[in-house]
Amino acid sequence: MIMKSIITLIFLFSIVNFCYGGKTSDYVRQQWPSADMSKGSFPPPSGYNAPEQVHITQGDKEGRGMIISWVTPLKRLPNIVTYWEESKDNDKQMAKSRVTHYKYFNYSSGFIHHATIENLQYNTKYFYEIGINGTARRFNFITPPEVGPDVPYTFGIIGDLGQTEDSNHTLEHYMANKNAQAVLFLGDLSYADDHPYHNNERWDQWGRFVEKSVAYQPWIWTTGNHEIDYAPEIGEHVPFKPYTHRYHVPYKASQSSSPHWYSIKRASAHIIVLSSYSAYGKYTPQYEWLKQELPKVNRSETPWLFVLLHSPWYNSNNYHYMEGESMRVAFEPWLVEHKVDLVFAGHVHSYERSGRVSNVRYNITNGLSMPIKDASAPVYLTIGDGGNIEGVANNFSEPQPSYSIFREASFGHAILEIKNRTHAFYTWHRNNNTKPVAADTAWFYNRYFYPHEEPDTANV
Amino acid sequence: MIMKSIITLIFLFSIVNFCYGGKTSDYVRQQWPSADMSKGSFPPPSGYNAPEQVHITQGDKEGRGMIISWVTPLKRLPNIVTYWEESKDNDKQMAKSRVTHYKYFNYSSGFIHHATIENLQYNTKYFYEIGINGTARRFNFITPPEVGPDVPYTFGIIGDLGQTEDSNHTLEHYMANKNAQAVLFLGDLSYADDHPYHNNERWDQWGRFVEKSVAYQPWIWTTGNHEIDYAPEIGEHVPFKPYTHRYHVPYKASQSSSPHWYSIKRASAHIIVLSSYSAYGKYTPQYEWLKQELPKVNRSETPWLFVLLHSPWYNSNNYHYMEGESMRVAFEPWLVEHKVDLVFAGHVHSYERSGRVSNVRYNITNGLSMPIKDASAPVYLTIGDGGNIEGVANNFSEPQPSYSIFREASFGHAILEIKNRTHAFYTWHRNNNTKPVAADTAWFYNRYFYPHEEPDTANV
Repeated sequence: MIMKSIITLIFLFSIVNFCYGGKTSDYVRQQWPSADMSKGSFPPPSGYNAPEQVHITQGDKEGRGMIISWVTPLKRLPNIVTYWEESKDNDKQMAKSRVTHYKYFNYSSGFIHHATIENLQYNTKYFYEIGINGTARRFNFITPPEVGPDVPYTFGIIGDLGQTEDSNHTLEHYMANKNAQAVLFLGDLSYADDHPYHNNERWDQWGRFVEKSVAYQPWIWTTGNHEIDYAPEIGEHVPFKPYTHRYHVPYKASQSSSPHWYSIKRASAHIIVLSSYSAYGKYTPQYEWLKQELPKVNRSETPWLFVLLHSPWYNSNNYHYMEGESMRVAFEPWLVEHKVDLVFAGHVHSYERSGRVSNVRYNITNGLSMPIKDASAPVYLTIGDGGNIEGVANNFSEPQPSYSIFREASFGHAILEIKNRTHAFYTWHRNNNTKPVAADTAWFYNRYFYPHEEPDTANV
Repeated sequence: MIMKSIITLIFLFSIVNFCYGGKTSDYVRQQWPSADMSKGSFPPPSGYNAPEQVHITQGDKEGRGMIISWVTPLKRLPNIVTYWEESKDNDKQMAKSRVTHYKYFNYSSGFIHHATIENLQYNTKYFYEIGINGTARRFNFITPPEVGPDVPYTFGIIGDLGQTEDSNHTLEHYMANKNAQAVLFLGDLSYADDHPYHNNERWDQWGRFVEKSVAYQPWIWTTGNHEIDYAPEIGEHVPFKPYTHRYHVPYKASQSSSPHWYSIKRASAHIIVLSSYSAYGKYTPQYEWLKQELPKVNRSETPWLFVLLHSPWYNSNNYHYMEGESMRVAFEPWLVEHKVDLVFAGHVHSYERSGRVSNVRYNITNGLSMPIKDASAPVYLTIGDGGNIEGVANNFSEPQPSYSIFREASFGHAILEIKNRTHAFYTWHRNNNTKPVAADTAWFYNRYFYPHEEPDTANV
């Protein structure tokens, strides 16, 4: 009798556990918050006016272009990048940069160079060199395979990185993975605005810090709130001034009119970047662009459809709770209609994975505001856990809402391995102090070619 | 027995009627839609390069300044406005304009002048003259009384005006009211964008059409969707280009960084203008501005707090249904917290008045999404019924939701008469074909000095 009761209890407990299937990790990070790395941690390269803060991003729609950017602190030259295929170092080509600079309160930037190189061969290693003689610096990258439905590809996913020791752990852990080919960056880069007068030297330091990765593989940029740098109290009224001078994206290639929203294709993925901090009301440029963009996605060519944005739409942390709601209301129905596979967000400094849910029924004239399970809906991933100066968001709402599958208040990064048109394997890597640990894994099934329910791997 | 049943039925019907207290007017406008007035309807003034499209708006925070604007079609001169108090025509002052112009697709604007005059006397009639000799044109306006808590003042309210015969009826009906002292304009001015290539000559024609009012009393401008003029298909990527060149507002006086959101004080009212078509997410400039602006409102000085915006937050018409939802989610809690008296919107081409309701409990983790009666909430007025080329929005959702007090699919305008710090009398005037008819009236009680429940006057 007692045995039977225990079994019944276990059975009931399992049901409850299934209904509210979410898991809140019992791993709680202690170190909170940590300071930015010292000024000397990432010194400028040696040599007079040596190019620094080198970074690359995809430079066209399909992956045959690259934007190569660098900063020269003292004068405009060198403004040439030389590049060549690994196997053809007697056939070098050159591209000239467009140079910009800006002032921000009492800061005056170096000369910021952006050179777009095009018509590269697919799946090919290239070298590139900036500067001449004593200051020349050489880097390399591998172009993606040609776009196609079954092309495997591995993305890293990093958000809210900042420049603390934790940030460095996250970046080192990511770089230790030799299979990852490009980074989807979810916004909030340098956290310069957390320093007095938005000390823009922190933008420079961040550029030097991440160079070890982003000079060698493209990072796909999303605008976060720490990129706004709106500071009327010091006379800085133009939103996004440092960010838009420093980081260029190929927005015109997708008929966008702004660097804050655009799309690229890469391997078997169509990646749409949106801006939580630009206008998204009906009739606005971002709204009109997304309305035209989604029907253009050809799932036969790029089965995987991802959306990147900064402020999450489904997240159960008390920090920034519901901040993404206004944008969700504007765009969620379209994302469900077009069967977006995954939505990646940052902003909340912890990790969370949702089930496939939608809440498109919300309506001020009825009471149906609970999100429901929806096979056409994306999974929402919050990866705002790069490890910045503001510390971990370790205050989850209780009870864990039913849409939340797994959540943990740690720093880390994620890896998404697209296998083919139907399957992708996903891992979130906690910074277990200095070691990376795969703390959450999931198989994602493509919403277009294989729209079946994924096993909940929260307890794996 | 039968009598008793009938009485019971009447009683039950009354209860139902009370619960769903709203009324949908049985007046339905026939004429739909109407075309824009012909090009010759408002010809330019006579004389070589005569100043035209004269308009004025408040030019400072308190009402002692005026922005005077005009267009000279062929060359920059005349760029001077001469002005004087009615009683002092031997003491004339001059102000020089700043001149701008723009190109839009195949259109090239005239020279658009904006002159700000300051330090005017309160409650005083001024004359002003633009041009010299044969082309000089003279107008006049009366400055508002000094800001104070019991200063009576009468505003006209017009939205979505356009330039049809219906638009002209609306404007003439408004102008027939000799008590109204300034217009709160709720966005959507010329509807030039409904013409091929956003034919900007329609902007000019609209400027000539409304001159008969706006050259003589200030219109307070709100940005509507027809001001966006975003048309990538013809290479026009800069939102609001014609509008921001043609219509200036004193946004810097309220520490705003954009003409799309700002505030002014006028008589006993503090008027906040917001933009449905700019970014309003947390951390964005509009959000940060409004967060700082609301606590600055001094109700002891300006008891009446109004918000103007284009896309309504509570409206039960099927046209544009729920479009304002994303902005409501972002800002509604603040407006309730700060006891905004009235929110005026346009956009929907019909008339509607809400009760005092709020829906700030909305939360993806619970099911409480019904708006509730809330004594601290504003009344929402939709006055998008100026009478433009797109016709009447005559398709209301059924049943009429409980938050909707009165609605009618007609063209018209409203008048708000502030009596003192506690009471304001409001009338909505239907264009009953060519005559204005007061079709909805209400007493509004001030939320700060007299936060009592207003009698529902829907059936008056």
